[in-house]
Amino acid sequence: MKKCDVDYTLYLCTDRELMSTDTLEEAVTQAIEGGCTVIQLREKDCSSLDFYRTALNIRQITKKYNVPFIINDRVDIALAVDADGVHVGQSDLPAKEVRRILGPDKILGVSAARLPEAVKAVEDGADYLGVGAMYPTGTKTDARPVTMEELKEIRSAVNVPIVVIGGINLNTLDNFKNTGIDGLAVVSAVIGAKDIKKAAEAMAGRFREK
Amino acid sequence: MKKCDVDYTLYLCTDRELMSTDTLEEAVTQAIEGGCTVIQLREKDCSSLDFYRTALNIRQITKKYNVPFIINDRVDIALAVDADGVHVGQSDLPAKEVRRILGPDKILGVSAARLPEAVKAVEDGADYLGVGAMYPTGTKTDARPVTMEELKEIRSAVNVPIVVIGGINLNTLDNFKNTGIDGLAVVSAVIGAKDIKKAAEAMAGRFREK
Repeated sequence: MKKCDVDYTLYLCTDRELMSTDTLEEAVTQAIEGGCTVIQLREKDCSSLDFYRTALNIRQITKKYNVPFIINDRVDIALAVDADGVHVGQSDLPAKEVRRILGPDKILGVSAARLPEAVKAVEDGADYLGVGAMYPTGTKTDARPVTMEELKEIRSAVNVPIVVIGGINLNTLDNFKNTGIDGLAVVSAVIGAKDIKKAAEAMAGRFREK
Repeated sequence: MKKCDVDYTLYLCTDRELMSTDTLEEAVTQAIEGGCTVIQLREKDCSSLDFYRTALNIRQITKKYNVPFIINDRVDIALAVDADGVHVGQSDLPAKEVRRILGPDKILGVSAARLPEAVKAVEDGADYLGVGAMYPTGTKTDARPVTMEELKEIRSAVNVPIVVIGGINLNTLDNFKNTGIDGLAVVSAVIGAKDIKKAAEAMAGRFREK
């Protein structure tokens, strides 16, 4: 998967606590079949070995469907399973260090909630930005939401793809049409849906209707 | 620090919860001044950014004293701060993957409690083994202690340096003289001592008296 070929339209961040299926493998398969174009594996509170084993499983699924596979935070796990890239937040390893460890060819995503964070992330080697939280959410409660004005400023300031995250669902996604962003990052709206495939289809379809 | 030059005599694993000082930096400095010959940084439940920042600080101290610096579990943090090596347990990334990510020159240590684990670790690229827990301890409670018989079997089976861990203190260290092991891995006996420097001096001194 070449960086330039990535379609950021519907970017799924996994969350075991929110998922509606028994296994993460089922959730990811259904999400991809519904139209998710990027899969980011997020694991908390598990051993490195368990994270690695899960990543190997998800890697198989994303390879089968030719969807890019991103690991949250753990650069070592990404290297161990040969993921397509890594996503880091502002409390993870600095983007500059991650880029150095990861080499030039892997995808590096960085979370940015404010303009200076966004500009620095791109300077430090980010290939795309996750901007948010756009709305208060259960999954990221600690920060003041990003305003639409801030999103526009970030969009004007950087030339890498942007996905918005945090409270993105069927009710809110229309707000991001005509903002110049490249995709929607979703957690509960897809992985927590009763029918994950349908939820992904509905969101990807609606976002593509311009 | 070349691998072959490492002196494993007194190998400190850090533990913030057990340390008697206010800061980890003080604890490590005192431990090295007392004679600890290797420092392994273990951090649990902190962000990757905090782990990285602590590692940068400890890296400065170990460089000043020319003592090898090992990171527990997180290969990415080790690469980011250019540590001398990584130590992995049986619940961390597999040693073989770690060796591949880390390259041939960094030190790779692996925890082994049983002979098959020890043999596999060396096959997979371990430069030294941490064998234990030798006694029941507060820091590693989940496993049956390694018997002296098992330790001897491991010592005969592998040709890399061995440090023993788990309940190693002034009362128990004499049991390991004449076993062919290379050093003592300590946690609470040094970092939890009222006087860390004196505790390290006493243990290193006693172990060197053959």
